[in-house]
Amino acid sequence: MPDDFETMWRDLAPVGRAAGGGYFRQPYAAAERELRAWFAEQCEARELVVEADGDGNLLGWWHPPGGSADRAVLTGSHLDSVLDGGAYDGPLGVVSSLAAVDLLRERGVAPARPLAVAAFAEEEGSRFGVACLGSRLAVGATTPEAARELRDRDGVALLDAMAAAGVEPGLGRASWLDRVGCAVELHVEQGRDLVHRERAVGLASVMWPHGRWRFDFAGEANHAGATRMEDRHDPMLTYAMTVLAANKQARLAGARATFGRVAVEPNGTNAVPSLVSAWLDARADTSASLEELVAGVARQAGERAERDGTRLEVTPESVSPEVAFDATLTARLAGLLGDAPAIPSLAGHDAGVLAAAGVPTAMLFVRNPTGVSHSPAEHAETVDCLQGVVALADALEELLR
Amino acid sequence: MPDDFETMWRDLAPVGRAAGGGYFRQPYAAAERELRAWFAEQCEARELVVEADGDGNLLGWWHPPGGSADRAVLTGSHLDSVLDGGAYDGPLGVVSSLAAVDLLRERGVAPARPLAVAAFAEEEGSRFGVACLGSRLAVGATTPEAARELRDRDGVALLDAMAAAGVEPGLGRASWLDRVGCAVELHVEQGRDLVHRERAVGLASVMWPHGRWRFDFAGEANHAGATRMEDRHDPMLTYAMTVLAANKQARLAGARATFGRVAVEPNGTNAVPSLVSAWLDARADTSASLEELVAGVARQAGERAERDGTRLEVTPESVSPEVAFDATLTARLAGLLGDAPAIPSLAGHDAGVLAAAGVPTAMLFVRNPTGVSHSPAEHAETVDCLQGVVALADALEELLR
Repeated sequence: MPDDFETMWRDLAPVGRAAGGGYFRQPYAAAERELRAWFAEQCEARELVVEADGDGNLLGWWHPPGGSADRAVLTGSHLDSVLDGGAYDGPLGVVSSLAAVDLLRERGVAPARPLAVAAFAEEEGSRFGVACLGSRLAVGATTPEAARELRDRDGVALLDAMAAAGVEPGLGRASWLDRVGCAVELHVEQGRDLVHRERAVGLASVMWPHGRWRFDFAGEANHAGATRMEDRHDPMLTYAMTVLAANKQARLAGARATFGRVAVEPNGTNAVPSLVSAWLDARADTSASLEELVAGVARQAGERAERDGTRLEVTPESVSPEVAFDATLTARLAGLLGDAPAIPSLAGHDAGVLAAAGVPTAMLFVRNPTGVSHSPAEHAETVDCLQGVVALADALEELLR
Repeated sequence: MPDDFETMWRDLAPVGRAAGGGYFRQPYAAAERELRAWFAEQCEARELVVEADGDGNLLGWWHPPGGSADRAVLTGSHLDSVLDGGAYDGPLGVVSSLAAVDLLRERGVAPARPLAVAAFAEEEGSRFGVACLGSRLAVGATTPEAARELRDRDGVALLDAMAAAGVEPGLGRASWLDRVGCAVELHVEQGRDLVHRERAVGLASVMWPHGRWRFDFAGEANHAGATRMEDRHDPMLTYAMTVLAANKQARLAGARATFGRVAVEPNGTNAVPSLVSAWLDARADTSASLEELVAGVARQAGERAERDGTRLEVTPESVSPEVAFDATLTARLAGLLGDAPAIPSLAGHDAGVLAAAGVPTAMLFVRNPTGVSHSPAEHAETVDCLQGVVALADALEELLR
């Protein structure tokens, strides 16, 4: 008998958890490998046929007993986490999908079309810098050529990391994509919209356009004591002003801009830096306003670079346009789920990649009491999670008819 | 026959040099170990008796043939570098000291008192965070108890690093200190004072008060997309404002303030940071103005922290008061060296630690054409370096009478 939701959740709790409580489940590293193995075991316990594509994604297939020529319903989410992240972002969707399969079987549902439970690879982009890397490769939004160039912070190439994790790499559009007819991903909410609406479960309306840009501020290394302030070309100053400018512009525009990652060379206390590299994460409600936001930040940074005698280079690393989830599908599920509200998602998701690739897709959100995410403090109440499982099972039952 | 200046210089050139041209000679790591072994060999080739104290410092003793009850003259400098540093800062003084010994012997000088050539450990503080750690331990300015707590960025304890490098640790005031009567350190200039004065060699007048303070900005990790700007407690903003405030205050005060080192947690592109730790390097012409500068920066940082909903903790890691080099000794050497000018040093030096401990001490500076230091681009012309060797030999000959 397969494990139930709470048992699965308890089993995953210690995997990749640091002493401080945060999760470090980087793709293809030890903890995530353990999660992948766990996922395959859970699929096998449910007689779901495990398929590994060459992009690092795993799918567990529930085929109708008599076979079916219809395209599948895909559900699932991802297992990787940001650095020092929470337990829910990703795994909640995977565990809920497996629990929903159990619930459908308890209800005696005989699917009229196949169901696939997916665990997508590198959704967070925390290791190779491209968010939703697995799903993007699978739909062709990231090319194998671009993926082959990807390196992690230690210089390890994606293909080498995959091989070291026992994943046979075969980068490129996945064959399963043509076997999928629609998709539903369940995810913990990363905000407090459902708290304000006093609902345990909601649906996604759109996914804001978003992306990440690398800002390289180059200056001149020098002695922090002996070099006069006016003789310096200190890129830390340019960076600092850019951080404040990005924050201010995002607030004025009702958008989001964050510098959460920075790398300094040589990063010595008594040396003016030669290089500050920092990553801008920006999101806005339209692609035009996102472009305007990033261009505005880059312009202010460039002006300050001129004053500081430093040089600025801005490189877009991944930019995603607005994605509207399937309106018909979302309305159908909203009706089914007691008029569940549809709220915008400011985070990116594999479901958004599938939707952008033309797969009719919907998303379910589970209430997050504090709204905190990408943090060890990320949380959802078990009672809400169980409501999420029921809602997902209801949605899948409807779609599998 | 021992190697001459240019041969020694050539031999050291590749040690710890990265592909980009910068030097990584962190104390007790591979490159610096090689330099220590090289120093011992060079001493032995000159029949200088090598003494290793328990603080990581090495001394090569030239004892007068008939013995002497007089206290020694100490010269030398350090072999370690900042991260991605230059070739001259430190090694120039050590190599020049050895070359000066050769020159004195060529001149037939028979010392009337002992000479010690020192290679001090961890002058830059680039590994364990305390500048002049070796000399500070030797004079008792840093206690063994405090040193035992020191860890490098990877969590390696000082004592373990010393042991791994084959250094028998015996932290504490060094016995050789009572055998030293005066000291002269030669160092590459870290500024362009001598360029403006059109002199190849100068002397130090005072060493500015200086120190390093760790600023820990604590906030709340959160999702970079889903968290509204107004709901954040983003320590990167507090840090950014502090960088700009420090720069502005230092410029207004004619002082120096630098944030060249920063560490972010979790340092992920799509996460608002939970913690930004940054190190302030500050220097001013008096201890009072240094205190005022750091207090001013901390006050502005604290005010901004309140606005950002973040928390600030400031920890002084090492603070050195103003050090005046020995006026009598400096005047005597200035006369000897053709009225060499005396200029303030804005960098810290082991010679300053000795001077503060009551050892009559002087410093020689060799011209730096660009003033650049703590950078791979740090440079001095060979002709100036050779003039430095002659000046040091002249000074030592005078003092060894």
